[in-house]
Amino acid sequence: MARDGLGVTPQSEDFAAWYNDVVFRAEMVERGPVRGSMVIRPYGYRIWELLQADLDGRIKATGHQNAYFPLLFPQSYMEREAEHVEGFAPELFTVTHAGGKELEEPLVIRPTSETIIGMMMAKWINSHRDLPLLLNQWANVLRWEMRPRMFLRTSEFLWQEGHTAHATADDAIAETMLALGIYNDVAVQIGAMGTVPGEKTPRERFAGAERTFTIEAMMRDGRALQAGTSHFMGTRFASAFGITYTGESGAAELCHTTSWGMSTRMIGGLIMTHGDDKGLVLPPAVAPYQVVIVPIGRAEAPLDAAAELAAGLQLAGIRAHVDDRPQLSPGFKFNDWEMRGVPIRLELGPRDLAAGTALMSRRLTYGQAEGGKEAIPLEAAPGLLTAELAAFQAMLARRAADFRDEHTAVVDTWPEFAAAVAVGWALALHCGGEACEDEIKALTTASPRCIPLAGEPEQGPCVRCGGPSAYGKRVIFGRAY
Amino acid sequence: MARDGLGVTPQSEDFAAWYNDVVFRAEMVERGPVRGSMVIRPYGYRIWELLQADLDGRIKATGHQNAYFPLLFPQSYMEREAEHVEGFAPELFTVTHAGGKELEEPLVIRPTSETIIGMMMAKWINSHRDLPLLLNQWANVLRWEMRPRMFLRTSEFLWQEGHTAHATADDAIAETMLALGIYNDVAVQIGAMGTVPGEKTPRERFAGAERTFTIEAMMRDGRALQAGTSHFMGTRFASAFGITYTGESGAAELCHTTSWGMSTRMIGGLIMTHGDDKGLVLPPAVAPYQVVIVPIGRAEAPLDAAAELAAGLQLAGIRAHVDDRPQLSPGFKFNDWEMRGVPIRLELGPRDLAAGTALMSRRLTYGQAEGGKEAIPLEAAPGLLTAELAAFQAMLARRAADFRDEHTAVVDTWPEFAAAVAVGWALALHCGGEACEDEIKALTTASPRCIPLAGEPEQGPCVRCGGPSAYGKRVIFGRAY
Repeated sequence: MARDGLGVTPQSEDFAAWYNDVVFRAEMVERGPVRGSMVIRPYGYRIWELLQADLDGRIKATGHQNAYFPLLFPQSYMEREAEHVEGFAPELFTVTHAGGKELEEPLVIRPTSETIIGMMMAKWINSHRDLPLLLNQWANVLRWEMRPRMFLRTSEFLWQEGHTAHATADDAIAETMLALGIYNDVAVQIGAMGTVPGEKTPRERFAGAERTFTIEAMMRDGRALQAGTSHFMGTRFASAFGITYTGESGAAELCHTTSWGMSTRMIGGLIMTHGDDKGLVLPPAVAPYQVVIVPIGRAEAPLDAAAELAAGLQLAGIRAHVDDRPQLSPGFKFNDWEMRGVPIRLELGPRDLAAGTALMSRRLTYGQAEGGKEAIPLEAAPGLLTAELAAFQAMLARRAADFRDEHTAVVDTWPEFAAAVAVGWALALHCGGEACEDEIKALTTASPRCIPLAGEPEQGPCVRCGGPSAYGKRVIFGRAY
Repeated sequence: MARDGLGVTPQSEDFAAWYNDVVFRAEMVERGPVRGSMVIRPYGYRIWELLQADLDGRIKATGHQNAYFPLLFPQSYMEREAEHVEGFAPELFTVTHAGGKELEEPLVIRPTSETIIGMMMAKWINSHRDLPLLLNQWANVLRWEMRPRMFLRTSEFLWQEGHTAHATADDAIAETMLALGIYNDVAVQIGAMGTVPGEKTPRERFAGAERTFTIEAMMRDGRALQAGTSHFMGTRFASAFGITYTGESGAAELCHTTSWGMSTRMIGGLIMTHGDDKGLVLPPAVAPYQVVIVPIGRAEAPLDAAAELAAGLQLAGIRAHVDDRPQLSPGFKFNDWEMRGVPIRLELGPRDLAAGTALMSRRLTYGQAEGGKEAIPLEAAPGLLTAELAAFQAMLARRAADFRDEHTAVVDTWPEFAAAVAVGWALALHCGGEACEDEIKALTTASPRCIPLAGEPEQGPCVRCGGPSAYGKRVIFGRAY
């Protein structure tokens, strides 16, 4: 593999350049031929598969069923819900020809599937007995992207989109919160991210939603990444598409619907939550390789022992990989796997073998001594490494939560606010005015990320204009991806 | 759920009407808004997920890695390989506008991904050390369809497409055969289908392939369904896209590539392999519900016992489902699940409960006494049903293989040929001439399906024109989907 060195721009020097270096050099991604499109290479795709398997299990365990809806639908579908089409029109890809002929009505490529699924729900739901209808789809969606960035903003991305219909608003709100909780659990337990679940301010709502909830995750440059959103639609889409049911009384009632999505953007979130100057750091739960074994020396014995060790680890459910590339030096391999974020590295040379041990190195440590290399007995390796990986996962989650807390400031004055959003998040009271929000954005590039669910009721003057606060709580402001 | 009766057109009366009745009434599928598009409903999609999980495991176990490539690419990519574009041009969907503007170059929606993946392979492969490159993608593809049919021919379908590059032709041929073997194993072991692996005649090759291999499965109307194909591309795509490597000698060499695909068409194949007059019959390996429990009577006890039984079966890895719909009679439920192809049904009423048993019925029997209902002890249910399901799976595979054999005739005369293809397949010698093939098709609607791999070398006169036989073996002719 031809490479112009393994070094990546230090994170502290230029975060954006570091991010680009890492995603390309770790072979996670490649630019596609169309503006903003990406190829997800095996090392990136495996992370998605691991996230996907976990999330899919949680979605199914809460009673949702997967289905698949068409990629293309008539443009007129989008127009049935006024806010929805207004929000998505500028991002649509349009198909005008098929089978060598011009189509009678142009088709759009789905930017999201509320409309086509709404059409189907109207067909499938008749009685209150058909409710709740709990559907989920794993799919690609396309949205024209002016400022593309690998994983974070691409013209095509992969995601799941949950779509549900309920008899009452209360049921639909409960579903919206259930999905949000699933997302937060995946982000924290699997992604080891530092998140805050909350509600979006009205202006940041999904196009067509009555209420939008989000999990906002703090990246290592102090910015916020919207990592998953869950929307309560009220009866808006039900009205637009005629999604009604016959209640027990016999009267026709409008359903209340929800939708919620999590995407390949999460991969970008993982990278920016954990990475450091040396490159990626991957949580074991989503690491394509959790343990890489580097045999030392040209002899057969370490190679054979490495293969045997890997087989033993794999039996214990550990994703272990032997780097047996003959043309590369151990030093090159150490740097390579460090850059690619493998949690634990094992070295296995003739001297280790003679002692019945391997030398273990952790990709990073936090809140404990550096450790350096540690000899571990080969016989006990599966059990020891299972414990090490669990500890590594917990350590990353703690590190991310600490980082989030250390970079979140409760502020009541403008100078405090400006200082806080320069390096992280500000928890402030705000008037809710759009002009005031615009001014804050112009001065600091920060915007309201969410109203944290956990916040205490509070009233007072707006941090910028001094007007009476809205929302009844403090709002998180931050610079966003 | 409003339904106009559960009855389906008898298979023996009108196979096509039976198929349509079954796919819609079993809630596997719904027509999409665009010509030839389909919605795959949960009961159909779950079958796909189960097939997919098995196939994905086999693909990974043989060293392939999953990746994801863009849906859209410039139309000019398709034009680089002359036969490829000629074959696919009439089926392309074209995107002309995005983000509210006309695109400089029209984009096509992938009908298959040889071209975009070829572009990337050319970028990623440098040295012989980068070979073989073994990639797989799970994706949607679009092909304009003039005669759509749910699952079998739809304008959008889901599939996996393997794409690999190798140093030598021998390596690439071995890969082509490896993929074919995986497909045959999935079709037979998981789908319980009656297949014949073979090579396509030149005219039936994939557009751009040097050799195409296929597994042909016999449906219950005697027609052939192409259930998976594997293509050896030689150096055609490597030449078109510049996929080269530096050999050990230092010279630049062209790679040899392959591609292979299996799709949601398999769901149609399963339906038409096993179904009968009463509806679907699903092999346990892909059945969304392997066992359905119908509690009898309005009392709480059978309901509670059914839930407990289902939990015990689920613990044993059985996909068990309790039909507790209060508004429906047991008789309706029996018919419903029979139509939906559930392998085993259990009835649980107060008298069964008192005896500590449940009444078991198999969806069908083959080569054994009808059996009828059988009381099984609740305590032993998990073990007994695990064995029953394995036996049911094996029985279906035997039934399909027997059906294929009983409907395949070795023929040497034209009357024999015509009689054979009217009800199944003919194994005949053929001259390989296109005019002769066209004549056979005009007279019988049968076409060459494949040259079976297992066939013995044989020469002689063409079954139609008497000219010297081609291919060195007998060819399977049949009517095809």
